[in-house]
Amino acid sequence: MRVALLGCGTVGSALVEMVADPARAAEIELAAGVRLEIVGIAVRNARADRAAPRELLTEDAKGLVERDDVDVVVELIGGLDPARELLEAALNAGKPVVTGNKALLARVGGELADLASARGVDLLYEAAVASAIPVIRPLRESLAGERIVRVMGIVNGTTNFVLSQMSRGSTYDEALAEAQQLGLAEADPSADVGGSDAAAKAAILASLAFGADVVVDDVHCEGITEVTDADVRYAAQLGYVIKPLAIAERVGKGSAISVRVHPAVVPSEHPLASVGGEFNAVFIEGERAGEMMLYGKGAGGDAAASAVLGDLIVAARHLSQGVSTPPASRRANVEIVPVDQLSSPFYLSMDVFDRPGVLASVAAVMGDHGVSIRWMEQKGLGDEARLIFLTHVAKEGDVAATVAELGRLDVVDHIGAVLRVVGSEASGPSPGA
Amino acid sequence: MRVALLGCGTVGSALVEMVADPARAAEIELAAGVRLEIVGIAVRNARADRAAPRELLTEDAKGLVERDDVDVVVELIGGLDPARELLEAALNAGKPVVTGNKALLARVGGELADLASARGVDLLYEAAVASAIPVIRPLRESLAGERIVRVMGIVNGTTNFVLSQMSRGSTYDEALAEAQQLGLAEADPSADVGGSDAAAKAAILASLAFGADVVVDDVHCEGITEVTDADVRYAAQLGYVIKPLAIAERVGKGSAISVRVHPAVVPSEHPLASVGGEFNAVFIEGERAGEMMLYGKGAGGDAAASAVLGDLIVAARHLSQGVSTPPASRRANVEIVPVDQLSSPFYLSMDVFDRPGVLASVAAVMGDHGVSIRWMEQKGLGDEARLIFLTHVAKEGDVAATVAELGRLDVVDHIGAVLRVVGSEASGPSPGA
Repeated sequence: MRVALLGCGTVGSALVEMVADPARAAEIELAAGVRLEIVGIAVRNARADRAAPRELLTEDAKGLVERDDVDVVVELIGGLDPARELLEAALNAGKPVVTGNKALLARVGGELADLASARGVDLLYEAAVASAIPVIRPLRESLAGERIVRVMGIVNGTTNFVLSQMSRGSTYDEALAEAQQLGLAEADPSADVGGSDAAAKAAILASLAFGADVVVDDVHCEGITEVTDADVRYAAQLGYVIKPLAIAERVGKGSAISVRVHPAVVPSEHPLASVGGEFNAVFIEGERAGEMMLYGKGAGGDAAASAVLGDLIVAARHLSQGVSTPPASRRANVEIVPVDQLSSPFYLSMDVFDRPGVLASVAAVMGDHGVSIRWMEQKGLGDEARLIFLTHVAKEGDVAATVAELGRLDVVDHIGAVLRVVGSEASGPSPGA
Repeated sequence: MRVALLGCGTVGSALVEMVADPARAAEIELAAGVRLEIVGIAVRNARADRAAPRELLTEDAKGLVERDDVDVVVELIGGLDPARELLEAALNAGKPVVTGNKALLARVGGELADLASARGVDLLYEAAVASAIPVIRPLRESLAGERIVRVMGIVNGTTNFVLSQMSRGSTYDEALAEAQQLGLAEADPSADVGGSDAAAKAAILASLAFGADVVVDDVHCEGITEVTDADVRYAAQLGYVIKPLAIAERVGKGSAISVRVHPAVVPSEHPLASVGGEFNAVFIEGERAGEMMLYGKGAGGDAAASAVLGDLIVAARHLSQGVSTPPASRRANVEIVPVDQLSSPFYLSMDVFDRPGVLASVAAVMGDHGVSIRWMEQKGLGDEARLIFLTHVAKEGDVAATVAELGRLDVVDHIGAVLRVVGSEASGPSPGA
């Protein structure tokens, strides 16, 4: 099977190396039933030095996709353009596509899937979420008979690393700098720490879990930048950890779902709590199958290349049989519930001026909005005091109104983290509870 | 798609109920592209009371399989006969088969796969290992491009529950009785505690991970019956937990593998250490993908029925396309390394008469056989003393010879648990290290 590779960065280079290794090539041939051969590699600058064989390099990606001797296209360019046009050209030409392009899938995954289905060819993307951890195929096939209630993923290794380091005593800035030194974070980390990388993955997971066309704009997205090392410490004292989560879940009994990305306070005995460092995990709750977790390395060129290679082998098997992966089930209408209609327990921290009666004022505002306090601690900070609250289940809208009004109180100097508590029995959101 | 169901125990009944539920049937139809209908259920006694519709029941399993209006066969009888004959009849008639029959697959899985492949129909068995946790399909498809180094599974919920309860202070007998009360253990628990249930699953996992025809007789099998609550306590004090593992791993650089089932001493920071109660998990180490773990509920009729239903939906999609899951890759020759040629660190406990010089005698025997002591503790037991050892990496054969000679010493009253330490960097077996 002759493969066109679009993009030759970390993952592409690892793939080229894996396919070229003779021992592995023999194993691949055994697994795929055909020999894989990379016949062209599209790059932006064909004269730049790289490990790939120079004679395979081209700057004409479109021409490569359309070459008659190309059977399957692997897209590792990322981004929307020109990736979208190239993938459409490949699918229109009846060529299976393997991609790890989460940004593209989270915008036009539904259209691309329809096109692949219409042409009867594979569109496979195991590498797009949680790298080599099998997540896409289990959701699409193994759990096809399961009514999935909730998917919660730690799908961004950078933010998980940063929060994990903060739980060991680093500040946010120190942890981020360390992630950058280790190559776990970009020089511009905003897509990671702001949550947009995880939001794309949340859209893909939600689409698969609920048979819907969820796009990234449907995803409520909050980054980890408001979380302080003090919050991480307080949470630990209370038996919780703060984790960067992508959540897709049913709300109520109908077809309504919520899809969101935010840091969350998770009980330390929850399986997701022990997923540390740059590791990824996807926790799935099924109506019948119960709780499951798929866990592993979420980053690195080798792991992603392994996921791409697994998809390539499936595409090769299918192509030789003249078939393709059946389309995932799709529902006509899935309602996305706005986040302000959800409810959960909350963690709140705020700094107040240490005067008599301040706690009474704060508690009165919370009570006025129906936000019930489950637990409170006050810590002295010289002239100020820090108040830490855990609330009972409260409506998002009520909490937002509380925070807005507290911000207008003279005695409140600064509102810190406002974090949802998830993963305990009582914390499951319900519509307007 | 018209389904024949063979067997209507816990899993079969749950499947009948799931397929009959109208809301779920609509979702299944959306996912599978066809409507599933159970057209017959073969049971041993058609007059016994059960939840399934009486008019579907028959005692003639063979006749049901061969009926013209049966498109696909679900086998949930278990055991070798008549399951084997029935599955062969189904496959020979070109009917896809979904089964959870680990005992059968671990004996003649290779022959059945060859037959399915020759007839171009599916043989799917996600429920056979770790119930609803997606394990089979990820190994067969998602990780097809990965060179798997090691698979370690907690694949028997009963023994994991018993050892977990022992870590909370129960004795073996108390924990087993509690498992029986909760329906987690059979009245005759020997297949679980003796390891033969896990051995069948180990054979299936090894076959998939290494493209080999591994049968249950290839699996070295030790039960958990020699593990005492004292061992569990000592291990905990040393930072370890005792877990019932099924292990399949490469040995050396060639095609040699080891497949075995035994209780093992695992560092408490290892992901498998936190898999408690009746939960199952499969930990996979890939050359490129790194470490992964698939975790979830390993038991219960609902979870297993969900796995069967997922396979049924895939079979339905394939049948409507006229295709089948491609055969897994198979190697001609995989050498199974006998367990006595492996090496690992060991945990040993023994009761000795508390006389001067006894430790010297014991240490001398270990030293004579090249078994090097890393750590030792002596605990007084009145006239006797209990010696607990952790060794450096030692050959299995040397440890066996040590234990045999120690058993002949007058000062040794009783040799207790002899357990391998796995999951730490230094503990990976190597051939004749």
